[in-house]
Amino acid sequence: MTMKHKTDTSCRELTLRQTARFLKRHDHYIILTHASPDGDTLGSAYALYYGLNEIGKSACVLCPDVIPKKYDYFARKTDHVLRENATVIAVDVADPCLLGALQEQFGGIVDLTIDHHVSNQRYSKYLYLDANAAATAESMFELLKIMKVNINDVTAKALYTGIVTDTGCFKYINVTAKTHWITAQLYEFDLNAAEINRLMFDTKPRKLLELEKMVLESSEFHFDGKCVVLPVTAEMQTKTGCSGTELEGIALISRSIEGVMAGVTLKQINDEEFKLSLRTFPPLNASEICKKLGGGGHIGAAGANLKGSLEEVKTTVLAMVKEALEEIDAGASSTQ
Amino acid sequence: MTMKHKTDTSCRELTLRQTARFLKRHDHYIILTHASPDGDTLGSAYALYYGLNEIGKSACVLCPDVIPKKYDYFARKTDHVLRENATVIAVDVADPCLLGALQEQFGGIVDLTIDHHVSNQRYSKYLYLDANAAATAESMFELLKIMKVNINDVTAKALYTGIVTDTGCFKYINVTAKTHWITAQLYEFDLNAAEINRLMFDTKPRKLLELEKMVLESSEFHFDGKCVVLPVTAEMQTKTGCSGTELEGIALISRSIEGVMAGVTLKQINDEEFKLSLRTFPPLNASEICKKLGGGGHIGAAGANLKGSLEEVKTTVLAMVKEALEEIDAGASSTQ
Repeated sequence: MTMKHKTDTSCRELTLRQTARFLKRHDHYIILTHASPDGDTLGSAYALYYGLNEIGKSACVLCPDVIPKKYDYFARKTDHVLRENATVIAVDVADPCLLGALQEQFGGIVDLTIDHHVSNQRYSKYLYLDANAAATAESMFELLKIMKVNINDVTAKALYTGIVTDTGCFKYINVTAKTHWITAQLYEFDLNAAEINRLMFDTKPRKLLELEKMVLESSEFHFDGKCVVLPVTAEMQTKTGCSGTELEGIALISRSIEGVMAGVTLKQINDEEFKLSLRTFPPLNASEICKKLGGGGHIGAAGANLKGSLEEVKTTVLAMVKEALEEIDAGASSTQ
Repeated sequence: MTMKHKTDTSCRELTLRQTARFLKRHDHYIILTHASPDGDTLGSAYALYYGLNEIGKSACVLCPDVIPKKYDYFARKTDHVLRENATVIAVDVADPCLLGALQEQFGGIVDLTIDHHVSNQRYSKYLYLDANAAATAESMFELLKIMKVNINDVTAKALYTGIVTDTGCFKYINVTAKTHWITAQLYEFDLNAAEINRLMFDTKPRKLLELEKMVLESSEFHFDGKCVVLPVTAEMQTKTGCSGTELEGIALISRSIEGVMAGVTLKQINDEEFKLSLRTFPPLNASEICKKLGGGGHIGAAGANLKGSLEEVKTTVLAMVKEALEEIDAGASSTQ
């Protein structure tokens, strides 16, 4: 299959109503998710797929990576009828590079992006962006409502999954009144929300439990318990068979310990490199610390890649955290 | 202070509107919470306290136990003006025995109970019970709305706390559309919900982390990983200083491991007694297994007290779990 490649990079923002009209206007759709798919990109993409099907459009969902089995309850295999000149829609994809294996084929020819990331690169011809939405699934729900598309139980499950995975089950700061209004409406369907939440939040593979055990055994507290270091060595990864996104939960542990202001997770990448995941609470600023180490991120969660042995890397990071903590102490005493 | 003791045990159920009228009719209130207070009994009681204050009533909140510091953001000390013939309201208290240290003084003279437990013992003169509410805080919100009481930020925080603590932050099966409708309305206030959720769900004392580490080191898997045993010995409790409600989270770990159908937590009570907390997934039935061991509970979560050494108790429980698993296997093969 050959695809037209657009070179025009101007991006036009649409309202929700214009987006609805756009979707009614065309007949054949290719829906793209981002790589390392999460609940929101998958939930929103599949909800759109089911919605377009409901109004007689042909569509397929393409995901650059294998879809984790835990999403089976809504992410069913779709027909891969790739038509030339099908309309290409990217869902929850802020940057064409996040299309991974699909970037080369589709990165330059996305017709419409539906997204909630304020960092969206405006790489598509049209864009619907609601940066206040906690999840793209929120916008997708509103879109299907405006299009007067019949929502069924599976669509509701997909949308609910998008919302809970992007909000830590309504725990995070991105949640708004609208998040709960929409969720209340999803409860009109046969959601089985408790089961979805069990799958998304309370199902830990045994190997991950093994890894957590090892990490906790090697954990170190510094500066009166204000800083914890959790090392995830190559040996631990090999022994337990945990890798990639499975390791993401470790950083969450570091920020859940009472009294900890800086949670330092050091994930070994190879013999001489570690990935730092730093989680902080105000007034500590993870982003500032990681910037000094050549990385970046948000105020409360940032990262950097660091060369050296575990001991070397740990010494570097602890020195930075110590400095930041001392600055805060100095600031506090000068204002007393 | 002497209090009138009612002997009349007939209990009259009120509608929400009647409850609102009842509250407008009297002027002085004593609001009781249950012992080992949780977010719902405290959140609902304080919301009622603030609400009654708003409409010029005098009120105080009495809690049989020390209120944990983490609730400080709404559970402020109230004036303890205990008036003779004040109207006594129990909030989220299903049984007078749950009044703990306050039972003797108040157990027999509760005028009104506002509750959501289907097991409510109907011990008060009047009762407002909504067994479909995920939390008593849901009913309290509706009540304040009907009374046209001005809700302020602190009241909203108290109500939100009640809802999230009784629903595992919207994760559990008791959540309904109404839970989310009400929460959406609470977001109109300065909730700082993410901070509340951090305090309630993501703040683990270091000693509890130590305990979890020890428990995981002693964990055992049985029957192809379908059953996990987590022993919480007296030695672990002494070494880490963890006790009482702090140990409750351990049973949650047992049910979060992938593939586990029966999570067995054995908490040592003394030299020759263990408390079993059993968590199961269908078709296993924790209640049935625990009933055979002299205990009881719900389908997915039940318990029993067992005499013996750790080895003896473990052998007993594992035999019961094995039997239950075999029954299921037999059932499955007979229907093939």
